[in-house]
Amino acid sequence: MDDALLDAEPASAGNIAARSDTATDPTTPVAPPPPAATAKAWETVLAHIEAQLAAGILSPGDRLPGERALATGLGVGRSSVREALRVLEVLGLIRTQTGSGPSSGAIIVARPSGGMSILMRLQVAAQGFAVADVVKTRLVLETAVARELAETRAHTAAARELLDAMGRGTLTDTEFLLLDAQFHLSLAEATGNDVLTATMAGLRSAIEAYVIDASAHVPDWPRTMRRLQQEHRDILAAIDAGRPGEAAERVAAHISGYYAETRITDAGHHHTSPTTSDRPPEMAPHSTLASHPALAHPTTT
Amino acid sequence: MDDALLDAEPASAGNIAARSDTATDPTTPVAPPPPAATAKAWETVLAHIEAQLAAGILSPGDRLPGERALATGLGVGRSSVREALRVLEVLGLIRTQTGSGPSSGAIIVARPSGGMSILMRLQVAAQGFAVADVVKTRLVLETAVARELAETRAHTAAARELLDAMGRGTLTDTEFLLLDAQFHLSLAEATGNDVLTATMAGLRSAIEAYVIDASAHVPDWPRTMRRLQQEHRDILAAIDAGRPGEAAERVAAHISGYYAETRITDAGHHHTSPTTSDRPPEMAPHSTLASHPALAHPTTT
Repeated sequence: MDDALLDAEPASAGNIAARSDTATDPTTPVAPPPPAATAKAWETVLAHIEAQLAAGILSPGDRLPGERALATGLGVGRSSVREALRVLEVLGLIRTQTGSGPSSGAIIVARPSGGMSILMRLQVAAQGFAVADVVKTRLVLETAVARELAETRAHTAAARELLDAMGRGTLTDTEFLLLDAQFHLSLAEATGNDVLTATMAGLRSAIEAYVIDASAHVPDWPRTMRRLQQEHRDILAAIDAGRPGEAAERVAAHISGYYAETRITDAGHHHTSPTTSDRPPEMAPHSTLASHPALAHPTTT
Repeated sequence: MDDALLDAEPASAGNIAARSDTATDPTTPVAPPPPAATAKAWETVLAHIEAQLAAGILSPGDRLPGERALATGLGVGRSSVREALRVLEVLGLIRTQTGSGPSSGAIIVARPSGGMSILMRLQVAAQGFAVADVVKTRLVLETAVARELAETRAHTAAARELLDAMGRGTLTDTEFLLLDAQFHLSLAEATGNDVLTATMAGLRSAIEAYVIDASAHVPDWPRTMRRLQQEHRDILAAIDAGRPGEAAERVAAHISGYYAETRITDAGHHHTSPTTSDRPPEMAPHSTLASHPALAHPTTT
């Protein structure tokens, strides 16, 4: 019953065009629509907001018009506006708040983050991206990061704090690996390049479940943990001493070594999912949006 | 009037939790919900599909259940299902088709592409990503691509065909630059790494409007075009001859040179939008979803 109402959008040009595709009555006149008219209603909303961002009419911190105003202004249904807002929210462009009053509605966020993580995680889950290709791309970016930090003698205090935290003996495997991920991310952040940092965060997030799952299969985890810490210290020492080549080599050996030891990329093909073997899918650590990075990834903001 | 109906989702745990935040009646009992119950309804749908993908229950080529079935099965409203489907569509995970019958509905696509492009394009438009950082990240990836192709003596026939096409004298600036972009993308594709290819396509797409816009300000475009072509030939020659260092250096010089000549990254800060100066926003080439890469980017599939 609510289906009909959900479908009952105003008959804009876009809607008419979209419906002519599905018309089963051969007497319905079907005029060839101009290209722009083939956009779906939600795409119209997205294109409108993108154009306003590109022109600087909307900027970080600005509030979007309400759903009703957008729907009326663009001649589309409110459900289409909502679809577009969800897309923008997941991509990290807006943050929505519940409630009414001056702080409700959707705000353009200044440092979008997390969209890359959900995108890459879903593409790995859907077998569009092979885990081995994610790891190889990480290697490319992380060696470039280490090299640049050593060349510019960048400030690495945040990485050093994370090293200290990892040295505490009371961490679980998962806690250690999360700090490890933060260490690598803090190096990317030290370059000051948000694109590189977000991409690296996305790549790591896409395979986080594999990395954590794999630690359970390491023969002697305390020994591996000590080795990883020593490698982290050596990477940082090479950066701080201004030795770009050594810094890059040490990062490459560190990453390749862990993936070789844990055999995460051994299969060399798609979908060596950690979830198919011994857990029900709802237990998969990367399958919950509770940890949705678009909403709750403090390190990439 | 339709607002109330759009809001009228079944009172699942998630909805009750979400509404307790906005309750204005102090007599409403508000129990602290468990963490999972705070997910919004559309996030529940997304998490469910992600879990099914991660577990291999859903695979490329599979059809999603219909909107009604998903809504009933998950205890959420159909509008929430639609919001989640739009997100998956934009991220390149599903392709939706109109009409009824066996070919209607949403299909999991095997090679998701385009999600990266819209993500990066929107983040540049919203000033989350600086153009200079996009270009620097491109440099990192493209030099790694050139190096790897030279090391592995990879097959570069597609790039050579594009070189030939660019040599035809009848191209407009924009046509030339689109073939130029394809040339660079074909090198990434020759690595066989889908993650690297999609990331590079996203970075290029994010600044496409700037690149095309900037060509109008080059003093002697025919001369620049000849120089770019010669640089392309030299890059390919270094790759085909198996000279990794030279291939990487030539790519770096080629990209840096073009951005220096066109002063795209000169400002060195956010939002040097090509659209604010002399065009209305609806004319901005990167502001239309007519060219939505998630739906129509043939080269990254």
